[in-house]
Amino acid sequence: MIAGVTAPSALLEPALRDIAVEVDRQFDQLLPVPDDARGDLYHAMRHSAIGGGKRLRPLLTTATADLFAVDRTCAVRAGTAIECIHVYSLIHDDLPAMDDDDLRRGKPTAHKAFGEAAAILAGDCLHDLAFEILADPETHPDPFVRIELVADLARAAGPAGMAGGQMMDLKAESEQFDLATVTRLQGMKTGALIACAVEAGAILGRVPPEGRTGLRGYARDIGLAFQIADDLLDAEGDEALAGKALRKDAEAGKETFLSLLGIDRAREQARMLVDQAHQHLRSYGTEADLLRAIADYVLERRK
Amino acid sequence: MIAGVTAPSALLEPALRDIAVEVDRQFDQLLPVPDDARGDLYHAMRHSAIGGGKRLRPLLTTATADLFAVDRTCAVRAGTAIECIHVYSLIHDDLPAMDDDDLRRGKPTAHKAFGEAAAILAGDCLHDLAFEILADPETHPDPFVRIELVADLARAAGPAGMAGGQMMDLKAESEQFDLATVTRLQGMKTGALIACAVEAGAILGRVPPEGRTGLRGYARDIGLAFQIADDLLDAEGDEALAGKALRKDAEAGKETFLSLLGIDRAREQARMLVDQAHQHLRSYGTEADLLRAIADYVLERRK
Repeated sequence: MIAGVTAPSALLEPALRDIAVEVDRQFDQLLPVPDDARGDLYHAMRHSAIGGGKRLRPLLTTATADLFAVDRTCAVRAGTAIECIHVYSLIHDDLPAMDDDDLRRGKPTAHKAFGEAAAILAGDCLHDLAFEILADPETHPDPFVRIELVADLARAAGPAGMAGGQMMDLKAESEQFDLATVTRLQGMKTGALIACAVEAGAILGRVPPEGRTGLRGYARDIGLAFQIADDLLDAEGDEALAGKALRKDAEAGKETFLSLLGIDRAREQARMLVDQAHQHLRSYGTEADLLRAIADYVLERRK
Repeated sequence: MIAGVTAPSALLEPALRDIAVEVDRQFDQLLPVPDDARGDLYHAMRHSAIGGGKRLRPLLTTATADLFAVDRTCAVRAGTAIECIHVYSLIHDDLPAMDDDDLRRGKPTAHKAFGEAAAILAGDCLHDLAFEILADPETHPDPFVRIELVADLARAAGPAGMAGGQMMDLKAESEQFDLATVTRLQGMKTGALIACAVEAGAILGRVPPEGRTGLRGYARDIGLAFQIADDLLDAEGDEALAGKALRKDAEAGKETFLSLLGIDRAREQARMLVDQAHQHLRSYGTEADLLRAIADYVLERRK
């Protein structure tokens, strides 16, 4: 059931703090700035990757991996790889030709700070780094596990997942989408990578596909709830707290969960999804309490 | 020794023709246009990936794989994955914020034909598709082989390889590089992916790293020779035949092999490298004749 708390739970708060430190440490180690003409490229990657964001995806990977007693370093590395894809997509989505944003995570966007060319390349390099991390034996000694992580992430990030969803989202300004299409779009744009973060924890835990049904249901439901919460924040949130421009969907005339359902029904729908996410975890005991707290957080977060 | 031919050899011509057909067929099968708002994304990918280019990288993979009797489908798939990276890099390099080119392979560049947003995303999706192909069991049944292909390609494409070289190349317009730096830059920008194409053939052939020394030397030498030939084509070539704008390096005031060495010494250097590439293949018999023909072609090509 929904915990009904608005502040992060006693379980969630230290978990969010820990994963933020661990992911930052990974990026810091993975991206030492070389003493040559690539300096700006690495500075742009570090600017976008280090010291910001909720780290929701790495947290989902480590929280899921915890169910199966996976080595913490493996889970943090896999989560960092998924975060690489998330950060690269933010860099490219913020470009003038895409969403044209100046502010991200309370800082200038990469192209504002380092120019468009360096930003495009920094995104490309983080995209690449994701697969470099996953292919490295340090992420998991078993190549079967590593190649499954690679396959799953490539699928989630590509034209059938995140990037495909972003393309549909760009079209949403000129085409009128119905609720089914918006649901599919958001399932790809945001949901696919969130699902991948949970799936990665199960892959690291060597859970066979048929044992992942509950976790997949959980991931699908919190992915949609996350997006509805995002729409609500876009409409009602505080720009300073969010660290980015808000109210953009309405200005662009895009159909969203909010425009299609209205605020009250959208909020109700998100609550229902979070409740359903809890139901998907019913076969797990207290070891899944962090995943439960994350489901509540997705809805109650203020940024 | 160098064959001294200017026309593609009797061995090379059908090999170039075959790989072009096979790679086009792969892309055609991998990129069916969906009946939804992602149409432009897929059309942009197909526009850039199908029906153009020399397919040098897939040819290097299949020609190397042939030394070790690798299944043809595996080699073509791995070569197509590497070509995905090459094509994505062309799409992004052609963007207004990068090299700002209107013409590529005799056609409008992706952003000219489909707009910048679709071009950025099409590049991102082809980047992704490369790893999706390599992670697929159809590329090779053994996950050890697949994960090594992934690791090698991610390294070759990222900040320590192609993308890092492109960043250095952007800086070449404002900084004065010496010959050692230009050699390193080009080794990353062009050489890394060419080396990866040869390495992929050896990985598919289960050649242990210590058995790849000759092939690596061959790849390094033809990679540099390829770039010098590119500089010569940029200075002396025919725009209509090249299918892209030429004479851009001199206009931009970039140091290249040509500006640093002069035409005669640059040509001599390229010949020496191709000769050296032949030497690296001396332990192989006639089974390496196609690789030898490719080395000559790299220098003698007219586009």
